Amino acid sequence: MHANPTQAPVRHGAMRAQNLGLVLGEVARGGPLTRAALAELTGLTKTTVSRLVADLLDAELVREAPAVSGGERGRPGVEVSLSGDRVAALGLEVNVAYLAACVVDLTRDVRVRKVIHRDNRAERPEDVLAAVRALGDEAASEASDLLIAGTVLAIPGPVGRGRVHNAPNLGWRDVEVAALFGRPVTVENEANMAALGEREFGEAPADFLYVSGETGVGAGLVSGGALYRGVLGVAGELGHVAVSSEGPSCRCGATGCLEVYAGRDTLPSSEALASGDLSALEACRSAGHALGVALSSAVNLLDPGTIVLGGVYAPLFPWLAPAVREVLAQRLARLRPALPALTASTTGPDAAVLGAAGQVLQRVIREPGTYAGRSGA
Amino acid sequence: MHANPTQAPVRHGAMRAQNLGLVLGEVARGGPLTRAALAELTGLTKTTVSRLVADLLDAELVREAPAVSGGERGRPGVEVSLSGDRVAALGLEVNVAYLAACVVDLTRDVRVRKVIHRDNRAERPEDVLAAVRALGDEAASEASDLLIAGTVLAIPGPVGRGRVHNAPNLGWRDVEVAALFGRPVTVENEANMAALGEREFGEAPADFLYVSGETGVGAGLVSGGALYRGVLGVAGELGHVAVSSEGPSCRCGATGCLEVYAGRDTLPSSEALASGDLSALEACRSAGHALGVALSSAVNLLDPGTIVLGGVYAPLFPWLAPAVREVLAQRLARLRPALPALTASTTGPDAAVLGAAGQVLQRVIREPGTYAGRSGA
Repeated sequence: MHANPTQAPVRHGAMRAQNLGLVLGEVARGGPLTRAALAELTGLTKTTVSRLVADLLDAELVREAPAVSGGERGRPGVEVSLSGDRVAALGLEVNVAYLAACVVDLTRDVRVRKVIHRDNRAERPEDVLAAVRALGDEAASEASDLLIAGTVLAIPGPVGRGRVHNAPNLGWRDVEVAALFGRPVTVENEANMAALGEREFGEAPADFLYVSGETGVGAGLVSGGALYRGVLGVAGELGHVAVSSEGPSCRCGATGCLEVYAGRDTLPSSEALASGDLSALEACRSAGHALGVALSSAVNLLDPGTIVLGGVYAPLFPWLAPAVREVLAQRLARLRPALPALTASTTGPDAAVLGAAGQVLQRVIREPGTYAGRSGA
Repeated sequence: MHANPTQAPVRHGAMRAQNLGLVLGEVARGGPLTRAALAELTGLTKTTVSRLVADLLDAELVREAPAVSGGERGRPGVEVSLSGDRVAALGLEVNVAYLAACVVDLTRDVRVRKVIHRDNRAERPEDVLAAVRALGDEAASEASDLLIAGTVLAIPGPVGRGRVHNAPNLGWRDVEVAALFGRPVTVENEANMAALGEREFGEAPADFLYVSGETGVGAGLVSGGALYRGVLGVAGELGHVAVSSEGPSCRCGATGCLEVYAGRDTLPSSEALASGDLSALEACRSAGHALGVALSSAVNLLDPGTIVLGGVYAPLFPWLAPAVREVLAQRLARLRPALPALTASTTGPDAAVLGAAGQVLQRVIREPGTYAGRSGA
């Protein structure tokens, strides 16, 4: 175990829980792995590793299979890898124009995925939350062989401590989302979850700014693989970065925010763009220009290595990217040694709901003790 | 020592160096402390702590004195605290209108402080660097009883790997500052060093955005007590955040940057403001408005708990703050659960040069082995 000399000795139960997490973490990071390799990686004895692996097998958090490359010293080896047979996560998302739910197992295999398109602005928050809860129940019932270890709900607006202070695009104000949901749930910002989804289920590097283009525009900053949340947990509100401070009014109460120029409602369809419709091309160029201005401010402040355009921006990337790149070059090239890479999301519209489920899986891998608790130490 | 089971055993010399840093770190954080308290805090045996403290005393990195409150169990105790008698740091700063140097000892006592006002735009980088090096030598010679453990030089522009890509306010482009300096030096961004100076020598909390108002405008984000640097090390360029993307040209090549509206050259003197000069008041209100717009974008992205206005903004705070607060409220209040606190720097114009010296002291405290190496293990 990881000794920490500044703290009192760890209780036996806590030590076992910590070591279970240590072993499962190595399996998640580098598996399949033999017990001998796990002992080496964790610094635990082979006897301890064997006992912990037995518990994890018993809980169906891991499975074993003959090693492809054979074992050490000529003996046939058995390797341990994550098992998707039992524990899973429920990811939920409320957005302006749809609800989404997914069940993802511990191997990150997406087992169920559900989307309902509807206008959530027209309904009361409690009704929207009841609808997304029902969608989640439906998804979970289609994976009834799995144990749902937890639920994370993504919301398009600043979220702090389970509460939405103001999500103007949904028309929600001071909504106690976690309390209204009526069941244990962690409430998170949609762009933050999409950033984590892109990192875990897509191809994003360890440092990047994910941009979520929906009715509103949000962003999630991942730095060294971890989400930057800010002091109140409401960092990344790219949609309200000023493009032109004297510009048109935004739903947030300010003027000239990015959302006014480049929110979903200002964007043409990719069909119109592909057919070469001139006004569609001009609308896309204009939104791309505003997005470039706001992103140049974000790059000046955050210096991310990569910008990933997600949400509705992903399918429009071929038309948006040239305008964005042009503005980034105009505003940044003389000052900075290099411009950030600009790429399209590879997880698409599912990024947020996948990232929400991924948060639950990360917790299970850190703290598997709850699920591997029956067979004793 | 801190065991790390995933790595090979640490060599004896490396272990001793690590433990010296562990003990000195506790003294710096919580001193004065008895040897018994240090043993408890570090998890090392009292014998090991005594041997390490002897080395640190020998190197004059710590000193001892009778405990004010008496020792444990009635015995008179002796407490160990940092010593300012030997090791010190040299902080240097090049800014547009001045050069600065300071010598700060290990107890953070500022022993020498020098400033020369001059227009550095008029000279070649190599001449400016020679002048600041000479100023540093002068400062060091006035503290000849101290051993200068290192030099950090703060520069007003984006710095990466000892190199300034482009500092338009100085007129520097592709300047290899570290190489030109001709002596071992670490080159850092001025606003970043000022942020750390405010944290270590002023009254800033663990999470804040420091704003450095000089000819250019920079910022340093401190999150959980640590500087956020970005991928290329050039985060915090608040001066080039867009206020109005179609606004006047900036020296950086972009348009409508904050610097155009609120750089030092646009600001009136505090004398003119104090005397109630109407055009001075209007100039300050207008700069404060632009600063508020750029800061609202920064708050949307970074969610800092506190904003500290430094550099030339600090003395103008009484006149600037109302306009800044008004814009922050207009642009942020409806969307966010709380507005960040807005305060004036308490370290004043020395923030960057103090922060630069502080960086050297932090390294000495982390790695005191170099200075406490003679008396053997």
